[in-house]
Amino acid sequence: MAGDSFSPYVDEAGNIGFPEGFELFMVHLGSWFAPEGEASGFHDVYTERETVEVYRRTGKFPDGATLVKELRSSETGDYTTGTGVSHATSGIKQWFVMIKDTQGRFPKNPLWGEGWGWALYRPGDTNKNAATDYAVDCLGCHVPARKTDWIYVEGYPVLNSD
Amino acid sequence: MAGDSFSPYVDEAGNIGFPEGFELFMVHLGSWFAPEGEASGFHDVYTERETVEVYRRTGKFPDGATLVKELRSSETGDYTTGTGVSHATSGIKQWFVMIKDTQGRFPKNPLWGEGWGWALYRPGDTNKNAATDYAVDCLGCHVPARKTDWIYVEGYPVLNSD
Repeated sequence: MAGDSFSPYVDEAGNIGFPEGFELFMVHLGSWFAPEGEASGFHDVYTERETVEVYRRTGKFPDGATLVKELRSSETGDYTTGTGVSHATSGIKQWFVMIKDTQGRFPKNPLWGEGWGWALYRPGDTNKNAATDYAVDCLGCHVPARKTDWIYVEGYPVLNSD
Repeated sequence: MAGDSFSPYVDEAGNIGFPEGFELFMVHLGSWFAPEGEASGFHDVYTERETVEVYRRTGKFPDGATLVKELRSSETGDYTTGTGVSHATSGIKQWFVMIKDTQGRFPKNPLWGEGWGWALYRPGDTNKNAATDYAVDCLGCHVPARKTDWIYVEGYPVLNSD
């Protein structure tokens, strides 16, 4: 995208684009497994290699860092590794994307705040950020992680590895 | 490593080396969650980007492909995404490494067979392949996946994405 070069996924107005193909160029931060409820399945989280390297040195997400959380449906079965073992399927439910902004670049854009840009994409419509107001659509689920820059870092031990 | 150049992790005798730092340069194939038993926790599986690209074109793991399966302990709690949600911790249990060999290069080495080299590493001792005979130490757990080249590909939907 054109415009402010702090992120390749953000244009001059603060519109956030979907990082197409991220599975093949981002690194895996960690996964969550939710056995039930609306968000059931695997939540696989990805970021740039450079973001991990900076976080390991500084303990902070750098300006322009991208986080992608992919929600997939799951199947459960008995395997040689144990009973009731779950794995992700090809059924993608949605993606959440966050872009770190340490400069408060878009104060009038309702998808930016608390040091991040916030986006939600649904399968088949990755051209459209389905969130319209981060405070309404996104922030609520992140409140318990407020002290760690709104990110549930306990699920991402690779951030703290040597 | 020196020797046969089909894999940077294999020497002339077929000894398999641990792919140090793989989390930052390999791509995430998929994760498994085992809620109980000896192998409980998250099993996160990684490979080279090129291996995914070749598999998408051919439906096969290419010669020299590396698979790494990292077993981590898990914690479970209630989150805004649901109740009883699990995530991996910093507690690594072990790593499994497999190297694809389409040429049958090491017929006398007991860690090679069925088209793969097989290795197991424990934390703090990544210089030593803790497996000594793939037929005894490794193959049993893979028998149910024999028809898909011994790999549980149903957990790796990224292999079949566009």
